[in-house]
Amino acid sequence: MKILVLNGPNLSRLGKREPAIYGSETLCEIEERLKKTAAENGVELVCLQSEVEGEMVQMIHRHADFDGLILNAAAYTHTSVALRDAISAVGIEAVEVHISNIYKREEFRHHSYLSAVCVGGIFGLGSRGYDLALEYFLAKKKAE
Amino acid sequence: MKILVLNGPNLSRLGKREPAIYGSETLCEIEERLKKTAAENGVELVCLQSEVEGEMVQMIHRHADFDGLILNAAAYTHTSVALRDAISAVGIEAVEVHISNIYKREEFRHHSYLSAVCVGGIFGLGSRGYDLALEYFLAKKKAE
Amino acid sequence: MKILVLNGPNLSRLGKREPAIYGSETLCEIEERLKKTAAENGVELVCLQSEVEGEMVQMIHRHADFDGLILNAAAYTHTSVALRDAISAVGIEAVEVHISNIYKREEFRHHSYLSAVCVGGIFGLGSRGYDLALEYFLAKKKAE
Amino acid sequence: MKILVLNGPNLSRLGKREPAIYGSETLCEIEERLKKTAAENGVELVCLQSEVEGEMVQMIHRHADFDGLILNAAAYTHTSVALRDAISAVGIEAVEVHISNIYKREEFRHHSYLSAVCVGGIFGLGSRGYDLALEYFLAKKKAE
Amino acid sequence: MKILVLNGPNLSRLGKREPAIYGSETLCEIEERLKKTAAENGVELVCLQSEVEGEMVQMIHRHADFDGLILNAAAYTHTSVALRDAISAVGIEAVEVHISNIYKREEFRHHSYLSAVCVGGIFGLGSRGYDLALEYFLAKKKAE
Amino acid sequence: MKILVLNGPNLSRLGKREPAIYGSETLCEIEERLKKTAAENGVELVCLQSEVEGEMVQMIHRHADFDGLILNAAAYTHTSVALRDAISAVGIEAVEVHISNIYKREEFRHHSYLSAVCVGGIFGLGSRGYDLALEYFLAKKKAE
Amino acid sequence: MKILVLNGPNLSRLGKREPAIYGSETLCEIEERLKKTAAENGVELVCLQSEVEGEMVQMIHRHADFDGLILNAAAYTHTSVALRDAISAVGIEAVEVHISNIYKREEFRHHSYLSAVCVGGIFGLGSRGYDLALEYFLAKKKAE
Amino acid sequence: MKILVLNGPNLSRLGKREPAIYGSETLCEIEERLKKTAAENGVELVCLQSEVEGEMVQMIHRHADFDGLILNAAAYTHTSVALRDAISAVGIEAVEVHISNIYKREEFRHHSYLSAVCVGGIFGLGSRGYDLALEYFLAKKKAE
Amino acid sequence: MKILVLNGPNLSRLGKREPAIYGSETLCEIEERLKKTAAENGVELVCLQSEVEGEMVQMIHRHADFDGLILNAAAYTHTSVALRDAISAVGIEAVEVHISNIYKREEFRHHSYLSAVCVGGIFGLGSRGYDLALEYFLAKKKAE
Amino acid sequence: MKILVLNGPNLSRLGKREPAIYGSETLCEIEERLKKTAAENGVELVCLQSEVEGEMVQMIHRHADFDGLILNAAAYTHTSVALRDAISAVGIEAVEVHISNIYKREEFRHHSYLSAVCVGGIFGLGSRGYDLALEYFLAKKKAE
Amino acid sequence: MKILVLNGPNLSRLGKREPAIYGSETLCEIEERLKKTAAENGVELVCLQSEVEGEMVQMIHRHADFDGLILNAAAYTHTSVALRDAISAVGIEAVEVHISNIYKREEFRHHSYLSAVCVGGIFGLGSRGYDLALEYFLAKKKAE
Amino acid sequence: MKILVLNGPNLSRLGKREPAIYGSETLCEIEERLKKTAAENGVELVCLQSEVEGEMVQMIHRHADFDGLILNAAAYTHTSVALRDAISAVGIEAVEVHISNIYKREEFRHHSYLSAVCVGGIFGLGSRGYDLALEYFLAKKKAE
Repeated sequence: MKILVLNGPNLSRLGKREPAIYGSETLCEIEERLKKTAAENGVELVCLQSEVEGEMVQMIHRHADFDGLILNAAAYTHTSVALRDAISAVGIEAVEVHISNIYKREEFRHHSYLSAVCVGGIFGLGSRGYDLALEYFLAKKKAE
Repeated sequence: MKILVLNGPNLSRLGKREPAIYGSETLCEIEERLKKTAAENGVELVCLQSEVEGEMVQMIHRHADFDGLILNAAAYTHTSVALRDAISAVGIEAVEVHISNIYKREEFRHHSYLSAVCVGGIFGLGSRGYDLALEYFLAKKKAE
Repeated sequence: MKILVLNGPNLSRLGKREPAIYGSETLCEIEERLKKTAAENGVELVCLQSEVEGEMVQMIHRHADFDGLILNAAAYTHTSVALRDAISAVGIEAVEVHISNIYKREEFRHHSYLSAVCVGGIFGLGSRGYDLALEYFLAKKKAE
Repeated sequence: MKILVLNGPNLSRLGKREPAIYGSETLCEIEERLKKTAAENGVELVCLQSEVEGEMVQMIHRHADFDGLILNAAAYTHTSVALRDAISAVGIEAVEVHISNIYKREEFRHHSYLSAVCVGGIFGLGSRGYDLALEYFLAKKKAE
Repeated sequence: MKILVLNGPNLSRLGKREPAIYGSETLCEIEERLKKTAAENGVELVCLQSEVEGEMVQMIHRHADFDGLILNAAAYTHTSVALRDAISAVGIEAVEVHISNIYKREEFRHHSYLSAVCVGGIFGLGSRGYDLALEYFLAKKKAE
Repeated sequence: MKILVLNGPNLSRLGKREPAIYGSETLCEIEERLKKTAAENGVELVCLQSEVEGEMVQMIHRHADFDGLILNAAAYTHTSVALRDAISAVGIEAVEVHISNIYKREEFRHHSYLSAVCVGGIFGLGSRGYDLALEYFLAKKKAE
Repeated sequence: MKILVLNGPNLSRLGKREPAIYGSETLCEIEERLKKTAAENGVELVCLQSEVEGEMVQMIHRHADFDGLILNAAAYTHTSVALRDAISAVGIEAVEVHISNIYKREEFRHHSYLSAVCVGGIFGLGSRGYDLALEYFLAKKKAE
Repeated sequence: MKILVLNGPNLSRLGKREPAIYGSETLCEIEERLKKTAAENGVELVCLQSEVEGEMVQMIHRHADFDGLILNAAAYTHTSVALRDAISAVGIEAVEVHISNIYKREEFRHHSYLSAVCVGGIFGLGSRGYDLALEYFLAKKKAE
Repeated sequence: MKILVLNGPNLSRLGKREPAIYGSETLCEIEERLKKTAAENGVELVCLQSEVEGEMVQMIHRHADFDGLILNAAAYTHTSVALRDAISAVGIEAVEVHISNIYKREEFRHHSYLSAVCVGGIFGLGSRGYDLALEYFLAKKKAE
Repeated sequence: MKILVLNGPNLSRLGKREPAIYGSETLCEIEERLKKTAAENGVELVCLQSEVEGEMVQMIHRHADFDGLILNAAAYTHTSVALRDAISAVGIEAVEVHISNIYKREEFRHHSYLSAVCVGGIFGLGSRGYDLALEYFLAKKKAE
Repeated sequence: MKILVLNGPNLSRLGKREPAIYGSETLCEIEERLKKTAAENGVELVCLQSEVEGEMVQMIHRHADFDGLILNAAAYTHTSVALRDAISAVGIEAVEVHISNIYKREEFRHHSYLSAVCVGGIFGLGSRGYDLALEYFLAKKKAE
Repeated sequence: MKILVLNGPNLSRLGKREPAIYGSETLCEIEERLKKTAAENGVELVCLQSEVEGEMVQMIHRHADFDGLILNAAAYTHTSVALRDAISAVGIEAVEVHISNIYKREEFRHHSYLSAVCVGGIFGLGSRGYDLALEYFLAKKKAE
């Protein structure tokens, strides 16, 4: 089983960026934790991040044969049809993750172009959301 | 640690109800699985279900001293300000769960009155969403 | 053939309630007339009424094996996703009835959450609408 | 008692036109059945059809002295103020009929310019809707 | 100077049609009065009426060389882009007339597709609106 | 003179519930104060509360012969057509009360289904709003 | 017969102000012409103008006993409920006049708060619109 | 304690203006009654009225040191940001009063720019609303 | 292969009508060019035009057995559900053509009722759009 | 070069009014600073303020021959078509200034009726915005 | 004559990507076919593709001197103002192409930011749309 | 003091691009002028431009320690949540600049995702807007 964890714009600044909203962990720390869990469960985990919408599209294309995608598209969640199309184009099973509760924030963050092409999603549970998304794929693998 | 799992209208028919959307597990089976996990982790878990909006409000009131609420309000998610107010009124930490991906369904299911008063939520990951919500509380307990 | 006639909030006051809009017949009189027709045609007819949305959901659940539902959800027509889900959940063939012409009234009465999960509906033809809905089921029975 | 049954655009193709939506009966067969019922009840029934909005307006004008109008304006239901005004202008008691359940179809079919000037309507009950509309007028006649 | 007076659907029933809204004069009487004024001022006046949108388009085409158009498109005011395009296509100077005050009536009567391609308009002043529109053209002729 | 004071969902938690918004008085204390004033003025005062929309409908039905209704429907204010219809159905003179200023809160609290069927209302004046509503009825009684 | 001609903000600059839209006549010249016609027909005509919404309200109050109001409220047409209420408050028969065709201009000029409380209106016919409005009152006087 | 009672446009015509909506009392009579109550309770009461939005702003500025404002801004309620800003600018505690039930009237009267900067409000209770607003301030004074 | 070229209202005036928008070719010239191409490719081409929505519906019905429809419905594009239904009713493969770029024009021209029932469309490429639509059918024929 | 600095409602209370939003400088101090800069650059500067929309219109009329207008219309920014028309009517080059960042405040403050008739604007830079607007005119003068 | 064919995000996966919607041809095959036609007609054709919005902007800049642009911006069609501005900025004649019929798909695909700055467009005619767009330029070249 | 001047897509073509809207200066010339002013005031000024949204995000990240940001995000102003988040993420004080008056242009240019996270902004004052933004920072520096 191969899983891509893909993070979008400004998440490179996790830990430094508005800690009241996003917590004090860095993206690096989260990725390390996820990789550890993955390794323990015999899952290959690739972690990528980009500020550029089109690069994220390419990253999804390049991992078209992966079994799962854990995607926090950050700001692009609300504006990117290209990412939506990329998920459809490769047909990967995706889980949408948001660290903060987007429904407590500005109106424009309440809409996601991605939810409808993902299998499901997790929001507002902090960086723990990534772990739970991974858990989802592990449980699925176990059930097969 | 005490957790209330509260399910709303028509979820009593899980397993029988539109299995293409909601899966073939019964609510009973899900509750059993959750209770087992809770017991293994020394957590008290109460499972309730009601078809009546106002009864659900009362159930939340009666468990005001609980540490967490796992809430699948089903149809009331989209129409109930009373449930929203009940969560605020008791100040309980709530996680919203939806079995199906509400963003793949009718427009009116894309809006939740509850999200903004919950800490976060999980949608579309099937009955597994309840387990992940419980996981969230267990991880939190462990971290304290 | 078994048919459930289910009436919603405030219809218990038919005859007394705003007769200019709803006519002067009581719900009891209408139900008697329907039962008589049903009996003459060898159809079992159950008539229920409730002011409580969740109770109406339960009534639909309890008659899940019936062949037809004649439903005047009154005010809940415009606000209840729970009733919509109940109809889908039991998969019963439903005909929506409104005594008054809801399109001559307030804007918010022009939208029904139920129409899209019913086979069809009748509005504005007074209490006669119930008879015509029953007629629909009788004709269907005869045609089979 | 004189009743006009007026059908609008494309209903001339009933039976041939999208049978999954509109059934396999032709308009001719429906009209024959209605005429038979009318004759049995001593009612004069005129059946007309037109593809042209303005011709339908004229047909309503020409039958201004009729006691009832059974109107399936088809596509013009959603776009014609002229037909609405024609009904008001002659003051005829009209019952709106739709063969299909317009609330299961495109958003723009959910609005009718005609409902508010009709006494009531029937939708989604197939060609049976015409019979029930006629039934309404017969019952009314009987009651007088 | 040649002027076309063009009336739309249901205006053939003026006098008979909802006199509380439209007054008790017939269209014939109004046309006679206008023709008399026109004749006294050496103006050629043609009066036409149709229930059919497309026929009204043709009538405008056929009088493309006229100096003015007094247009009461009635219901088509609110729904016809074809009439709007006809006025633009022939480049005639048009004055829009409404007998009733459309702003005291249903919301959908507050919008006119025609106003923006007419030089101006008159509403709510009863059948007198036609006379004032003619007056406008006479005054213009005098001023030249 | 007989007055019904009817409170809706979550108001049972007044005093405990978000005191910054709703104050620290309990519903019991408010009801005692109102009953005292009523008694001093020879008015019969019945105080009821329910979390269930349909029960509130029943409570209104059961007091159909009362002279006045002081109604704080709380969350149902914004979502209940059934309560609106109940007020119309019994024809009682109702005064709408809100403890908090609903116009300083979420957008969805700015709309009330009930205002248009009440004689008037009071918002934002704290629990004092109930006293002023009672005052209104007392002054009316005195004036008769 | 006494008629008030009331002009609103910026109309004091007619002739100087954007002549492509409003023509090159001054307000003074228009008022002179109207007064001449009025005098010839034995009608008392008072002409007022103000830049201040509230002053226009006062002017309408002070002429509450007049038989007619010719009102070009200019910019206040689109923003003033106070002027609307003033017309209702004194119950005067008002004709709304706009020199330019407001439907060829910005979207916000397509809505008038005043139309629904006026008997009717004239737009886009230049300063001639005032004469036609006066004509309306003269014809009415003659008809009585 | 010093209270300003400020009335807006057209309220100078109370008693004469649409008595079916606003009652037959004059503003003078209401002000007299309020002043009497105020005097009996040792409160200084200033009563002002203006048709001009900007003058009302000035009146609020000039009484910036008052303890309370009873404000019926009439038409300006729905259109005036300037009055809203004036209340915020002086920081006075304001109670909004409407004689009629604005929610039974035109859609545009359902929105108030002022509610969100007032402590609360009273609508639809006739001229009695002013007395109740004063009562609110008196009760507050007593409680201090 | 048989193709119907159907043009809607005001296109009879092509060449004369607003040449800046629609070019200076007449409809006749365009039809001649299309017929020549069709003949060279062994395709039967019928060219029709009507100002009347309902006649266009009939023309589509009468050519129900054709292999393709090149449709420029002009103004009816934006207002006609009847034409949409006609295309669905006969199940013909249709290509929508617009001479002008409708997206550079008024907002209401940006929406087409027809696009969703056509296989595709061409806009803004002048009268060349018809040739390209024919080309599409020819290429399809060649490919079979 | 002559410049008018025009301030709208409630700006007379600058310094006293909500200093967290508007700063602690008085309007007087700002005007003194602007006048000093103007004098140093040989520019005539007139500073006016009014609470009354119509007076502001008059002030713009009276300075129609000025070379520039620095306008902070405050609340009227969002509600006044009359001010917009005044700027167009005199054809003065205007720069819109807002002390606070109106896009961080209520939704209704995000729209300005004035921006589209001004050459440009400055918002959110505090009282410094006036200086920068003046700078713009000085730079323009220097460039000529 | 020099033509740029520019394809946007996810079109690199044509043939592999959702063949039911986009067909089974690869972008490479389409480009080859277009290049062959271009070469036969003495036209220089450059084919580019990018997943990155900003790179597409740069590609348009770099070919500012080209005679035509055939643009399928895919997902960016619906979200990119930058591409719209790029087309305007270089002033190139552009033809918009969509392989699928965007009007049969999600609502958000019905709006294009690009149409209004293109000369025209072709949608829903499969990969044939590119050939027809090229045809348009060839015919134009021939006509010059 | 260190200031970043960041320009977005298509601004690389300033001078060449639509000079009627954007003027004839090149971006290079503007940047030179700004650098000169900065140098004279002892301020370090870095000027960057990119067509790529994500690159602009990175540029902001890389200058997180700067004292100010002068940002003309051009087209991305209206579509980029990522840039909004970048400004919040680094917490830099930003001034938004637009060369043209975006409120005189298309509706979609009236909304900025960036304004609410900037301290303020300047629009429509041509390339001078950049100088005034710099001036703002210089004045602030001087005031400290």
